[in-house]
Amino acid sequence: MNPTFDVYDTTLRDGAQQEGMNLSVGDKIAIAPLLDELGVGYIEGGWPGAIPKDTDFFARARTELDLKHAVLAAFGATRKAGVRAEDDAQVRALLDSQAPVVTLVAKSDVRHVERALRTTPAENLAMISDTVRFLTAEGRRVVLDAEHFFDGYRFDAAYTTSAVVAAVEAGAEVVTLCDTNGGMLPGWVTEIVGELREALGHTDDSAYRLGMHAHNDSGCAVANTLAAVEAGAAHVQGTINGYGERTGNADLLTVVANLEIKGGRRLLAGDGLSEATRIAHAVSEITNISPYGRQPYVGASAFAHKGGLHASAIKVDPDLYQHIDPRAVGNDMRMLISDMAGRASIELKGRELGFDLTGQSDLLSRVTNQVKSAEAVGYTYDAADASFELMLRAAITGERPQYFAVESWRTIVERKGPRGTEATAEATVKLYAGGDRHVSVGEGNGPVNALDHALRQALVRVYPELSGFELIDFKVRILDTMHGTDATTRVLIESTDGQRSWSTVGVGPNLIEAAWEALTDSAIYGLIHAGVDPR
Amino acid sequence: MNPTFDVYDTTLRDGAQQEGMNLSVGDKIAIAPLLDELGVGYIEGGWPGAIPKDTDFFARARTELDLKHAVLAAFGATRKAGVRAEDDAQVRALLDSQAPVVTLVAKSDVRHVERALRTTPAENLAMISDTVRFLTAEGRRVVLDAEHFFDGYRFDAAYTTSAVVAAVEAGAEVVTLCDTNGGMLPGWVTEIVGELREALGHTDDSAYRLGMHAHNDSGCAVANTLAAVEAGAAHVQGTINGYGERTGNADLLTVVANLEIKGGRRLLAGDGLSEATRIAHAVSEITNISPYGRQPYVGASAFAHKGGLHASAIKVDPDLYQHIDPRAVGNDMRMLISDMAGRASIELKGRELGFDLTGQSDLLSRVTNQVKSAEAVGYTYDAADASFELMLRAAITGERPQYFAVESWRTIVERKGPRGTEATAEATVKLYAGGDRHVSVGEGNGPVNALDHALRQALVRVYPELSGFELIDFKVRILDTMHGTDATTRVLIESTDGQRSWSTVGVGPNLIEAAWEALTDSAIYGLIHAGVDPR
Repeated sequence: MNPTFDVYDTTLRDGAQQEGMNLSVGDKIAIAPLLDELGVGYIEGGWPGAIPKDTDFFARARTELDLKHAVLAAFGATRKAGVRAEDDAQVRALLDSQAPVVTLVAKSDVRHVERALRTTPAENLAMISDTVRFLTAEGRRVVLDAEHFFDGYRFDAAYTTSAVVAAVEAGAEVVTLCDTNGGMLPGWVTEIVGELREALGHTDDSAYRLGMHAHNDSGCAVANTLAAVEAGAAHVQGTINGYGERTGNADLLTVVANLEIKGGRRLLAGDGLSEATRIAHAVSEITNISPYGRQPYVGASAFAHKGGLHASAIKVDPDLYQHIDPRAVGNDMRMLISDMAGRASIELKGRELGFDLTGQSDLLSRVTNQVKSAEAVGYTYDAADASFELMLRAAITGERPQYFAVESWRTIVERKGPRGTEATAEATVKLYAGGDRHVSVGEGNGPVNALDHALRQALVRVYPELSGFELIDFKVRILDTMHGTDATTRVLIESTDGQRSWSTVGVGPNLIEAAWEALTDSAIYGLIHAGVDPR
Repeated sequence: MNPTFDVYDTTLRDGAQQEGMNLSVGDKIAIAPLLDELGVGYIEGGWPGAIPKDTDFFARARTELDLKHAVLAAFGATRKAGVRAEDDAQVRALLDSQAPVVTLVAKSDVRHVERALRTTPAENLAMISDTVRFLTAEGRRVVLDAEHFFDGYRFDAAYTTSAVVAAVEAGAEVVTLCDTNGGMLPGWVTEIVGELREALGHTDDSAYRLGMHAHNDSGCAVANTLAAVEAGAAHVQGTINGYGERTGNADLLTVVANLEIKGGRRLLAGDGLSEATRIAHAVSEITNISPYGRQPYVGASAFAHKGGLHASAIKVDPDLYQHIDPRAVGNDMRMLISDMAGRASIELKGRELGFDLTGQSDLLSRVTNQVKSAEAVGYTYDAADASFELMLRAAITGERPQYFAVESWRTIVERKGPRGTEATAEATVKLYAGGDRHVSVGEGNGPVNALDHALRQALVRVYPELSGFELIDFKVRILDTMHGTDATTRVLIESTDGQRSWSTVGVGPNLIEAAWEALTDSAIYGLIHAGVDPR
């Protein structure tokens, strides 16, 4: 941990404002150790006294959390107008949280003081001084978040600066400049932070630090944070996966990766950055918000290469095609198989899947052509590794493993009665496996769901391993849409065995047929990787 | 359109490199008019000669596209080493595309010249000059994309600069500086573009422009583009929704919104920016990639406010809590808990459809609430005007027109025999129309196709006008994908009567059921607009 620079995480407080996110106390207790493992210096846990769940969080944290690097910060507002800080129930709740750090949000835009807070500019400054002084006297370290700092500064720089001065003089350790509405551009940040530093006579050995809290409404949260750091800020706030209200907060991992890997600084305790990808995904499991594939550094696509042009060169010299070594953030290079791919990318992909195809140029040509002709009729393998692996295995061994032989299948969907009445779906599957003929029926809320149930039921007598597999995602794409319902349909299915997941693809003139292909591929792939031989 | 600044869209070429995206020629033909409507100056359509689909795109574009503002650009590489430009098949394919603009990608990093291209630095410069000269002599306007420009510049500024000079001297109109690996930070971009301009003696009235092409690997694609513009670039490349390989390209809408709204420039033809939200969402319907809620400016969450603290203040003074007026980009403020669209946009939409709802505030509230509850369960009206109009008509007249009453329907899909044998689909529809009961059977290559045929056959005896309608597009989106095949399904259907087309939407737990809703809406809408009364 860099003693002259703070990495301050606000996932549990500002991140929780994200649309669709609803963290329980247990969720927060589960996320905090991941942040600690990443090596941040501060974990803002919530707003005790204002949000009951957050009061509980700090109470439970005292016994349930054992943080190695980070300290907890409790977030709250300056005292109310016309009340002494020590008499303000909400300020007392901050003390009661027993968090060693208190982060106070204060108005610094005079318009907000007058129109939202409905008090005088002078009283607002007194609210800042009094509250900071009271809390520091009680032994707390204080961070002051100057809300709407940048908009306020552009409207009335003198007043906004006086709010910062009030906090500093009262003993705040950090004054965070907040772009609360997220509308700043990097050039503006550079200019304003520079001017403020000059006005304050702030130097790098001042007794306090300037911090940056950015939102992404202009798509510049990361860049604005970097601009503030270049201009002298030594405290950065952000959230894991950029969670936050509206367009979100600055993505803390991206900010830190840029500063550490590209700026050559050491900011995190331990070797946290090399675990960034795992930690980001683990947090998204807890928040139950799907990870964003295109997320910088840690996204599933962040080091995925598609252009065939590049593949041969990447094989030789990955550094020429990647901005950093993906291992630095715990991520991995991936080759996507597509009709833009050539033999080199097939070879790389094979290696990724555990097949060494070096020098097998006949096989590589054959598979490359197979991929191209399959993609020409609508298959896509960049999102269906498992189907690609089955194709590759068949090319290597000369045949597909015969776990079962299908005699027939049928689905029926019908609705009896007026609009609004629910339809029913059922499916019948007839197949041979383990030397016997199996006939089974499945119901479901749609034809694919019914077919999935019927297929499992037919197979599970011979392959009980199947009962551990689950279908977790299902995507349909109508290709060549000029032909309406005559078009080709592509179905992608993602399955899991609880440990890992795999994706398969099916294509056909008929949606149900395409789904059937993807369902059967999924079962076969799952059985192969469960180490089961055809019975 | 600003004559001194280019907005250059590469959604159809570089955007198509996005993982999981696979655009058909029809998709590209459908996206191009949306880009034109946005008001971009250039639409890069693809790589003719290298990708067969892209060759087709340019051929079809000549007859099927009628662009008002934008010109098409064909993307391709400089001539091969040791071949004359006029003898290079790939260069000829660029000419054959008949695109007025040709964008040539060229190596500018000497390491890529030697290790990936495997030719000499001097030959690479000749490849640039010869190809630019040949194409300009053939009457093409040439943009040169200097690949890996920034990494190359940091390694060997002199060589990289000489590649730019070669292009300029040969007559390139634009030289785009590409951060191909996406690893730049804004400070670096500012410095390098400034140095380059100085080395070139480039001024704002030079005969050529400098451009910027950024990727988002450092989370700074937008900021890097702005940094280049501040340093003098007058041509920005990007993609709708930031699609692109790995972490994606610069999100063109965010870049343009920042430059227009915050920078006070006018860059797009017409009033395109005020349609940005609708256009971004329409493109994502075609690419079938779910929109990202936190996307700056146009995301569903971009102006959604959750903090209860703010709610009352926002109502009084929204400007204090939003970085811009959301209407400037066709988006809307939302208070979370209440959902989506305001009455004003319903009123506007009504006007667009020919209903004057001014002052009818009860009706507007009713429809607004109906839209909100429908969208909450998965409907979307952005891309389904016809279904919205049916809802609006029903609200105005108090009922839906009763062209027919459905008794029941059923679809059966089955396959008898091994993998590879085609499945068959049939559907039965029973309904009342024109005072009689009609029972009909339809066949098709899929259940929706069969259902469409059966519905028409049942109705056409009473409404012969239906025989002129055709279903031309059919899209399926699985919502709430964490539930696998248990999820909600949305179907969008586009139909035509040969003159105009209309879109309808259906939603259900069951794909077939959702399709049935969209099919019946389509028939009703078509009959209303054919001037047919219920019989």
